[in-house]
Amino acid sequence: MTDSQSAGLRTVEWRDNKVMMIDQTRLPNELIFVEYDDFNQVAHAIKTLVVRGAPAIGVSGAFGMALAALQSGAPTVSELLGDLERAEKVLVATRPTAINLRWGVARILEVARAAAADYVQDDAAASADDNTDTGTDAGTGTDTGTDTGTDTGTDAGVGRVTRAVIEAARQMAAEDVRVNMEMGRNGSTLVSDDCTIMTHCNAGALATVAYGTALGVIRAARDAGKNIKVIATETRPVQQGSRLTAFELQYDGIDVSLVPDTAVGYSMSGGLVDMVVVGADRILRTGHVYNKIGTYQVAVMAARHNVPFYVAAPLSTFDMESNPSDVTIEHRGAGEVLVTGGRRTAPEGVGVINPAFDMTPPDLITGIITEWGIVEPPYGESIKKLFAANN
Amino acid sequence: MTDSQSAGLRTVEWRDNKVMMIDQTRLPNELIFVEYDDFNQVAHAIKTLVVRGAPAIGVSGAFGMALAALQSGAPTVSELLGDLERAEKVLVATRPTAINLRWGVARILEVARAAAADYVQDDAAASADDNTDTGTDAGTGTDTGTDTGTDTGTDAGVGRVTRAVIEAARQMAAEDVRVNMEMGRNGSTLVSDDCTIMTHCNAGALATVAYGTALGVIRAARDAGKNIKVIATETRPVQQGSRLTAFELQYDGIDVSLVPDTAVGYSMSGGLVDMVVVGADRILRTGHVYNKIGTYQVAVMAARHNVPFYVAAPLSTFDMESNPSDVTIEHRGAGEVLVTGGRRTAPEGVGVINPAFDMTPPDLITGIITEWGIVEPPYGESIKKLFAANN
Repeated sequence: MTDSQSAGLRTVEWRDNKVMMIDQTRLPNELIFVEYDDFNQVAHAIKTLVVRGAPAIGVSGAFGMALAALQSGAPTVSELLGDLERAEKVLVATRPTAINLRWGVARILEVARAAAADYVQDDAAASADDNTDTGTDAGTGTDTGTDTGTDTGTDAGVGRVTRAVIEAARQMAAEDVRVNMEMGRNGSTLVSDDCTIMTHCNAGALATVAYGTALGVIRAARDAGKNIKVIATETRPVQQGSRLTAFELQYDGIDVSLVPDTAVGYSMSGGLVDMVVVGADRILRTGHVYNKIGTYQVAVMAARHNVPFYVAAPLSTFDMESNPSDVTIEHRGAGEVLVTGGRRTAPEGVGVINPAFDMTPPDLITGIITEWGIVEPPYGESIKKLFAANN
Repeated sequence: MTDSQSAGLRTVEWRDNKVMMIDQTRLPNELIFVEYDDFNQVAHAIKTLVVRGAPAIGVSGAFGMALAALQSGAPTVSELLGDLERAEKVLVATRPTAINLRWGVARILEVARAAAADYVQDDAAASADDNTDTGTDAGTGTDTGTDTGTDTGTDAGVGRVTRAVIEAARQMAAEDVRVNMEMGRNGSTLVSDDCTIMTHCNAGALATVAYGTALGVIRAARDAGKNIKVIATETRPVQQGSRLTAFELQYDGIDVSLVPDTAVGYSMSGGLVDMVVVGADRILRTGHVYNKIGTYQVAVMAARHNVPFYVAAPLSTFDMESNPSDVTIEHRGAGEVLVTGGRRTAPEGVGVINPAFDMTPPDLITGIITEWGIVEPPYGESIKKLFAANN
């Protein structure tokens, strides 16, 4: 588990044919790891926010598929594929709008189908070889004959598909960590020594498999020997800053202070912030960044006080098709605002405006940090070049 | 109680020789009025935030002194003054940094002393009259002789001082309402019909005796027949917006929606806000405004989106002596940020930056609404003129 150690806290992990996760609903009060051997448990965990954060739930879904393969008990590959298709539906239904989840689970199903197809081909080739080699056995080839007629595989195929699924899910997790660590290394070159970085929401290990995006930059700077302090905004209404960012940075021994979201301006005008690094939920080819509600005003305050404002996000975050007018901002339930810490803090019947995201325009963004490098304005050109150079 | 009716919800009130208050600790869930006949109860209410808001606790302290006079039972004016001095100490100690409380209570003590002095003079004059009238009684004037030697008054004086104290406290409350209503009328001229006003924190009836400052402007615009909607920020960490502003506007039938403090930028960029009106804790002669943490960034976002940003505050808020460098920003306990709604929402041991106020520079302020009129930039000149014209 070298990756696990170097990348710090691991949100979700495959271990001994089981899925291990941090139960994020217990944070920040308790660090509890839960272990699942049934994909239905993983589905429940995604639904109840035991695990959250786009990359983390994508990989969790993939691991759920791997469990589904292991627990299937199907005697044939086609039955196994049927079980995986049923598991896919259960897993995707937990958070139907989560693109990463849908993508992660679909990816595993593809791998399973490809492995199944490969097996059938190999099997057919083996049969053909048999035919060539033995000649007279052709008529009595019951084994391969009946299997290919009613099934697409055998017990051996089930094992092969299952192994392929597990391997693909593990690779997906490793890829997430690798991307974050490269992003971190790229971003850390921007961080000076004795630097205080403000971050918003949780773009950390707990939103990914490990290491994080924005917090990956902070970890990489620290790992490069720089003295870093962090100011984390609470991030109302869900308080990912208080519950998750403060927790995971403190866990890693990084100096972190919380501010209410109202104190961003005070912190900037008081010279307490040298740099801002946030994550992103979606980045357009024009450099418009959609991220957790509140990001926009942090960017505006940073610009006013000449504090560099960076976004750290993997290439998978870029949406090269949409325009700002195409993007719909998700609104969440009023309960998040009316009830605080389990207690009603506003009168019943009062209106609530509770957007989950806002848009930060490109002119407020100093640079966007990716695993392929850092892009700067004008983003229309630099993002295009980045993709052209790496595709 | 004409004032009470026209000004709406009344935070603190003198009624039948008792003090009535809204118990703000029960808001927004319950509207409970509490009634006190002992100044120690009032002191406890101030200490435990049954009543809060600078003008409201100033008047509450004054009413506490009135109760102290009523419950004193002192046979002489000098003993009554002694009781009032003891009550002053108890009341001021509840919130030692609250200038309005100190001022309100001291004011009443002055009134008591003046009334006592007047009484002694009248009494002396009466004695002198007696002497002139009766001539030969001088040697046997035991009544007046012993009283002026050991006391400063009589039972009749006690009643007179007590009545003066009660009257002064009631006047102080009426003056607060009158000032707010004038401010409201001045400010309402700035409000167009079908207007959505954003406000921050609670500069409302619940921070004053009634009607409010920023919310007084909103009430006056509504009372002038304008169709007004309000967007109230939650105002973390103490959530005066959720608990108090949303409550009192809803109570008055004004359309109010809450936003998390993170959604100010979203609201402005989405064109949801036509105007901002906030209160102030202190305004310098240069137009620098100190108000609840978060005000500054609301002002910055308003300026970016060309939304007029107004401050409504009585003349008593102006500090004509200090410069920005003289003003110390009070920082409050970490618990307000670490614990949300009674539940710990951040890990133990994490740092907290929790300033109670921030400073909004004059260039972000469209106008300052007072009971004497509205001032606009350049504030150095307009504030000077306002005071010169009215003094």
